[in-house]
Amino acid sequence: MTISVERTKTPKQKPGTDQLVFGKVFSDHMFICDYSPDKGWHNARIVPYQNLSIDPSTMTLHYAQSIFEGLKAYKTKDGHVNLFRPRENIKRLNASCRRLCIPTVDEEFALTAIKKLVDVDRDWIPEGDGTSLYIRPFIFATEPHIGVRPSTTYSFVIITGPVGAYYKEGINPVKIYVEPNYVRAVRGGLGEIKASANYAASLKAQVEANEKGYTQVLWLDGVEKKYIEEVGTMNVFFIIGDEIVTPELSGSILPGITRKSCIELLRHWGYNMNERRISIQEVYEAHEKGLLKEVFGTGTAAVISPVGELCWNGNVITINNGKTGPISQRLYDTLTGIQYGKLPDEFGWIEKV
Amino acid sequence: MTISVERTKTPKQKPGTDQLVFGKVFSDHMFICDYSPDKGWHNARIVPYQNLSIDPSTMTLHYAQSIFEGLKAYKTKDGHVNLFRPRENIKRLNASCRRLCIPTVDEEFALTAIKKLVDVDRDWIPEGDGTSLYIRPFIFATEPHIGVRPSTTYSFVIITGPVGAYYKEGINPVKIYVEPNYVRAVRGGLGEIKASANYAASLKAQVEANEKGYTQVLWLDGVEKKYIEEVGTMNVFFIIGDEIVTPELSGSILPGITRKSCIELLRHWGYNMNERRISIQEVYEAHEKGLLKEVFGTGTAAVISPVGELCWNGNVITINNGKTGPISQRLYDTLTGIQYGKLPDEFGWIEKV
Ligand SMILES: Cc1ncc(COP(=O)(O)O)c(C=O)c1O
Ligand SMILES: Cc1ncc(COP(=O)(O)O)c(C=O)c1O
Repeated sequence: MTISVERTKTPKQKPGTDQLVFGKVFSDHMFICDYSPDKGWHNARIVPYQNLSIDPSTMTLHYAQSIFEGLKAYKTKDGHVNLFRPRENIKRLNASCRRLCIPTVDEEFALTAIKKLVDVDRDWIPEGDGTSLYIRPFIFATEPHIGVRPSTTYSFVIITGPVGAYYKEGINPVKIYVEPNYVRAVRGGLGEIKASANYAASLKAQVEANEKGYTQVLWLDGVEKKYIEEVGTMNVFFIIGDEIVTPELSGSILPGITRKSCIELLRHWGYNMNERRISIQEVYEAHEKGLLKEVFGTGTAAVISPVGELCWNGNVITINNGKTGPISQRLYDTLTGIQYGKLPDEFGWIEKV
Repeated sequence: MTISVERTKTPKQKPGTDQLVFGKVFSDHMFICDYSPDKGWHNARIVPYQNLSIDPSTMTLHYAQSIFEGLKAYKTKDGHVNLFRPRENIKRLNASCRRLCIPTVDEEFALTAIKKLVDVDRDWIPEGDGTSLYIRPFIFATEPHIGVRPSTTYSFVIITGPVGAYYKEGINPVKIYVEPNYVRAVRGGLGEIKASANYAASLKAQVEANEKGYTQVLWLDGVEKKYIEEVGTMNVFFIIGDEIVTPELSGSILPGITRKSCIELLRHWGYNMNERRISIQEVYEAHEKGLLKEVFGTGTAAVISPVGELCWNGNVITINNGKTGPISQRLYDTLTGIQYGKLPDEFGWIEKV
């Protein structure tokens, strides 16, 4: 399928590198492609960034049949543009599609669409540490229909926007609240895909944690409220003695691409890296014994986000004196080094635009 | 707040009573009202039914921060228009708002909006058994923003459309598939509100049940996969010996207004009506012993939907010989009798437009 390009006649003012915030400013163009049962995915086009016109009965508004992805384009010192493991995002997009009864997209085609859009808005990719072009592919149900069943029509849209660091704190450690009541997802539900629905389920806990002075919520499993799942929009790792642990993919956790990359790096470096069940109790006991060395979140937005403090049922523990630990730092430096082309791409993770 | 009215200049063709399907045809007008932090809910207006223009970064598309309601307007023989317990819908709308960090709406105002819209499109209310005007209020996040947090702006929209019976089978018994793997909602999640997100979570199980020849899915609790929750878009009742049982509101079940009305009617009639935990095992054992007399679903769309067959892990049981039972029928006749003004409104459930 060819992708037509209609360039904007009224380019927008780009924000200065120091004014970058997350998710507020979007580039000049967007990609859009439609699905209907007779034509399949068709009419792929890059057009000026513009509003969508949708019927008020459009199914996604009523039944949240929508999924998304998030990845970034990085500008290297020598002016190249790097994508980080974009095929993994497209694979996960399709896994999300399958779980929500949305027709999948061709992998190569989706990659071409991302690259072409980033290329058209190449000037929008900011330069500067921690900055990048955030890329948001999403697919949503477009059929005008009231009544619960999968839509027959969809739109696949990609928008992009220049971003600075996700957390105001940057690579500084964040404070995380262990959520005792609310549940984000449970096995058999949507937790392992990037469904819009999961984020609706997370809002209230996040707001309440923010009110208590915490940046994000650490989710426990929805069945026993014992085992650790993930953090807000990040997977989570614990360094306990000589072991590095991240919760196994249990069916309710998003299989993060940063998570996967960290596991691969840590194993490559020879660490004892295990994916297994880990309870919040175990983490607190390890802290008690002086064995809890580092805790960090992993995700595209923040890359590595060290956790400096945990609060579980009123028990507050400080990790590594509230400082970024050496392994968190090494992962951050290595991942961003590869992303920005400062380090060699040993694992073949970079896709050039 | 006053509600302005702009009438359409191009009224649409109304479908014949025999052509009515569910959720495909919408009336000439819609209600819309906006929320911003500085103005609160403002600019309430009834306008010709029209597309909404939304930024592709509109938060609801990405994070499913949206909720809805469903109720009906019924035309009586003598030409009146009845709403059935609309205040209950508005209370539930606000409960949904609170859970999803959406600003609530004033109850009286929302009721006025519904009535005014139904009044403007009074001619769209079909006449004929089982037909009505379906009313769909919904609220969704409108802020253009990528990043997980509640939106700062919202739209409250109401659309309506003439509908026939929800199930093609009418009041005839449906076949229900007891879902062993997928989970719709779990305590601590969104199951007890009418969040769009819940319906996304239900699609795949429903499609698979349809493929097996079943109309809907019966959900079990997400923790032990033992206890009965609800059916698709209905609550569910079991008549076992002299007891009538419906699952208690456990935190993951929608508190249906038809459910509530049935409980009230059944108690009024002197039945031993209990809200309690009930396992699928208990239902099958009751059937084994010849005690399972009737099973039925309750919901605005279908009112009462008798269940003629259940399939649980390959074990198929037929209930009441696959026929509508006497209590199901009595509830259906009474509820629709009240709704269509054929029976006196003993409980004060009717609100006239
Ligand atoms: C719920 C959730 N978990 C984990 C992640 C991290 O995934 P990734 O590393 O692919 O960005 C994200 C964000 O993308 C997320 O939304
Ligand atoms: C999940 C779910 N359960 C139950 C119901 C029944 O609720 P009510 O009787 O208020 O229509 C509905 C539909 O409204 C529903 O969507």
